[in-house]
Amino acid sequence: MKKLVVTLLTIAAALNTVSASAQFARSEDAIRYRQSAFYLMHQHFGRVAAMASGKIPFDPKAAIDNAATLEVVGKLPWSAFGEGTDRGREHRALAEVWTDKAKFKEYADAMQLELTKLSAATKTGSLDSVKQAVRGVGGSCKTCHDAFHKN
Amino acid sequence: MKKLVVTLLTIAAALNTVSASAQFARSEDAIRYRQSAFYLMHQHFGRVAAMASGKIPFDPKAAIDNAATLEVVGKLPWSAFGEGTDRGREHRALAEVWTDKAKFKEYADAMQLELTKLSAATKTGSLDSVKQAVRGVGGSCKTCHDAFHKN
Repeated sequence: MKKLVVTLLTIAAALNTVSASAQFARSEDAIRYRQSAFYLMHQHFGRVAAMASGKIPFDPKAAIDNAATLEVVGKLPWSAFGEGTDRGREHRALAEVWTDKAKFKEYADAMQLELTKLSAATKTGSLDSVKQAVRGVGGSCKTCHDAFHKN
Repeated sequence: MKKLVVTLLTIAAALNTVSASAQFARSEDAIRYRQSAFYLMHQHFGRVAAMASGKIPFDPKAAIDNAATLEVVGKLPWSAFGEGTDRGREHRALAEVWTDKAKFKEYADAMQLELTKLSAATKTGSLDSVKQAVRGVGGSCKTCHDAFHKN
């Protein structure tokens, strides 16, 4: 009976993996998907960061909108780093993404937490809070890029 | 006085236009941005459409998640069709996007309304409701692509 349960759990885990990879018909689709998500993040974060650094005027409503978009889009890229998606289209993810999955996940989770904090900070309407949260997000981008992204 | 008000309004309108275009440093950034948003929409709609057509099993939770993402991402591309963004990077938007802005906006708004309906449909948990909403979204994609997108 125990053996049967273990077998069923193994099958369930395998099906789950298949299902996750099957979200993308081809490896190049997964790569394009995560690049698309990161590009949107880059643009929306850039807008809030420009307010934080004073390059553009602080627009509290726009900050809220950008941070809300970031919170949603920031959840997307991670499912697109499945097995085999290290090739199929030009990209700049390092092999460590697939050889050190635990660390990659830790950094990805940390970044999403910083995005949640940024979203909360924009809702206070305080530029100082936004500045601090922008530093948090920027730091988490850099930490992950240093370890997992070709410069 | 009236003249001054008109002048100020004209300046304000001009500044507003500059501000909208200034979201993107370069025309190619705007094009890449909207292409990124459309690609994410294509992927997430494909997942719900595959459930509606029976290609993959109906997963009510996944349908809700995909539709929620679509609702957010579906709002994004439209700001990236500003003046001058008809060139700078290869793309398949037709000139009509910039010569018939009213119709383009009408179709874009219609699609966002269909995405809202899809989101509501997924929350009912009824596959029939999802199928109907998927037809609505698919129709709005096609209507806009037929008029504004090179095939």
